[in-house]
Amino acid sequence: MIVTLLTDYGYDDEFAGVCRGVIRTVDRGIEIVDITHGIPRHDVRRAAIVLRNALPYMPVGVHVAIVDPEVGAERRGVALRCADDRLLVGPDNGVLGLAWDEAGGVVEAIDVSRSPHRLEPVAATFHGRDVFAPVAARLATGAELADAGQRMDPADLVRLELPVPSIEADGVIAHALVVDGFGNVGLDVAHADLAGTGLALGRAVCVEAGGTRHRATFTRTFADVASGELLVYEDAYRVLAVAINRGDAAEALGLAADAEVRLSPAS
Amino acid sequence: MIVTLLTDYGYDDEFAGVCRGVIRTVDRGIEIVDITHGIPRHDVRRAAIVLRNALPYMPVGVHVAIVDPEVGAERRGVALRCADDRLLVGPDNGVLGLAWDEAGGVVEAIDVSRSPHRLEPVAATFHGRDVFAPVAARLATGAELADAGQRMDPADLVRLELPVPSIEADGVIAHALVVDGFGNVGLDVAHADLAGTGLALGRAVCVEAGGTRHRATFTRTFADVASGELLVYEDAYRVLAVAINRGDAAEALGLAADAEVRLSPAS
Amino acid sequence: MIVTLLTDYGYDDEFAGVCRGVIRTVDRGIEIVDITHGIPRHDVRRAAIVLRNALPYMPVGVHVAIVDPEVGAERRGVALRCADDRLLVGPDNGVLGLAWDEAGGVVEAIDVSRSPHRLEPVAATFHGRDVFAPVAARLATGAELADAGQRMDPADLVRLELPVPSIEADGVIAHALVVDGFGNVGLDVAHADLAGTGLALGRAVCVEAGGTRHRATFTRTFADVASGELLVYEDAYRVLAVAINRGDAAEALGLAADAEVRLSPAS
Repeated sequence: MIVTLLTDYGYDDEFAGVCRGVIRTVDRGIEIVDITHGIPRHDVRRAAIVLRNALPYMPVGVHVAIVDPEVGAERRGVALRCADDRLLVGPDNGVLGLAWDEAGGVVEAIDVSRSPHRLEPVAATFHGRDVFAPVAARLATGAELADAGQRMDPADLVRLELPVPSIEADGVIAHALVVDGFGNVGLDVAHADLAGTGLALGRAVCVEAGGTRHRATFTRTFADVASGELLVYEDAYRVLAVAINRGDAAEALGLAADAEVRLSPAS
Repeated sequence: MIVTLLTDYGYDDEFAGVCRGVIRTVDRGIEIVDITHGIPRHDVRRAAIVLRNALPYMPVGVHVAIVDPEVGAERRGVALRCADDRLLVGPDNGVLGLAWDEAGGVVEAIDVSRSPHRLEPVAATFHGRDVFAPVAARLATGAELADAGQRMDPADLVRLELPVPSIEADGVIAHALVVDGFGNVGLDVAHADLAGTGLALGRAVCVEAGGTRHRATFTRTFADVASGELLVYEDAYRVLAVAINRGDAAEALGLAADAEVRLSPAS
Repeated sequence: MIVTLLTDYGYDDEFAGVCRGVIRTVDRGIEIVDITHGIPRHDVRRAAIVLRNALPYMPVGVHVAIVDPEVGAERRGVALRCADDRLLVGPDNGVLGLAWDEAGGVVEAIDVSRSPHRLEPVAATFHGRDVFAPVAARLATGAELADAGQRMDPADLVRLELPVPSIEADGVIAHALVVDGFGNVGLDVAHADLAGTGLALGRAVCVEAGGTRHRATFTRTFADVASGELLVYEDAYRVLAVAINRGDAAEALGLAADAEVRLSPAS
């Protein structure tokens, strides 16, 4: 099986490389797909969203996500089997919580904190190397999930809390969920949520954020508006997003994750 | 066949990782070489130059380049067979235009905008995932190029425009084409262009840029001048370049892409 | 054999990608593990430390390290066999000097500056592409080390100089060796050096740096102190390190590589 990696380790240090080395030491033939190691430090929710978004495009395999501010403390490490046979591995802090919904739910949960597969001595600050990478590698080579640690009740897994958007008669109150490297801002409402709000493709949209109102156009893609103009569009993961053609909407609108964004039809 | 990837997706988001996942989902055995995902956003020309420079060092395969400011709009997506059997895949905006010269010219061109290999529904803003990655993967597993879309005339492909250097009796007027991460500035003149200009290895060179004149030495490598000193050299792609030993020439000389740089013999 | 790569090439340019292409051109089946390409430019010592730290987690293979400010000048390129059968490849400037200690010492040294495996013409400024990558690839496919160049005396290899910590009755005078991307600062003293100093797990520690004294706690992991608080801990490579839970210790304490850091028991 393939192993995918998603972390906040960054690229300047050797942390991701060391995890790849550990996996390849278990079995040189394991294929690794790096989803990204550029998750903002400690941003569990961002990693959870990115993993959910990326998962349908990955071969069925062992999917590791490591954003782990509580590493070495009381939080558990877990390995999970989902209904669609994907295996998820990471700290039990919510980082896997959207992926397992995407994958049909958890059908088997194992606490790997003291896994027989871990590298001894386990460093208190680098469970990616000493716990998650070797557990994932063993699972990828066909080891039984049940042998990776102690069985636990999936109901005890830590869940992720997300803001709740509000759909109103004259618009939606959404939240910035993910700001990508281009400054495009993914919101927490889907196109399907818009029925009855007056928001529709091709129309003008009023975007309110941080007390300021901006006029945008609801379009299919960036180049449907002039360079420098604001657009609202359905992004590649089928949620609404705000962007500026050839510009940075997050910066222009002062939007960071969790910021409230109100969309309403513009007259 | 191997697939190489060159994009402006950056490393902080999952975009490049998702393309890798799509390719591996088509066939787990496809080898992927990431040339870089750090092309400056929307810099089609920079990507075109980097692809041309890197291509001779890649195994013959499917070479994907995605810098795509017009994604989802009218521009075509294309897959091309070159005279040396390399296949190029990407938007038809010039990003492939220097690579096909390097590869002996285009012998077969297919418009893949509505390719049968694409992932449905195609997101208007992420053709890397939904068009270029799956097309490249199918080609890498041996699918016929002609089956990837609609045949088109190679003469209709969008070509790239580059500045034109001027070779004069007493020097050359060149342009900054590529500024690398070290601040070294690649120009658009080759060593072979210098005959009769008085510019030669070992001699002093006057470098004029932005209205300022700087004295440099024409040397083989960085360490041939003292730390902090300016040099002109033939870079690894056999064009002239300007650098500062252990420094950043682009910053020191205020050089960005397209800037005019005049080189003449210094007295 | 696997090839691992560690460089200061960064991710924005194609340099690392071109090296991967060269290796795969020699043999498509060679597995590559990127340790990191994010070593600070020209920081030979940082690369040497990172290679030593990462090496035990890599499969036995050909381990390439390229941080090469003197590229093209008089410094040699070398390929080395270590006592544990690992092969090291890179410039002879100390970058391999800690790795070979980790690997049991050098048992065979070859000067590859004029290796028959190199790509001609060798660019004076990109030996990664033209010398180190092709030499590593040939070694990975089973070529004899002795055939990679000229035999040399391992005693002539350039060694790395490191600062020397001082263990005193009432504390230790250490140095910042590596600042990672989280701002955690690795020092040059190990837990085992602390006997008799009064520094021990669970106790308060006085950290002096840049003329300022800070109070820290000697703990196992970040989350053992409150958010924003300073800790001293044994890091994943079993040396002492200074960090701030969910913060950046290097920035807060003004610590760069080589800075002196005095640790003593706090009352």
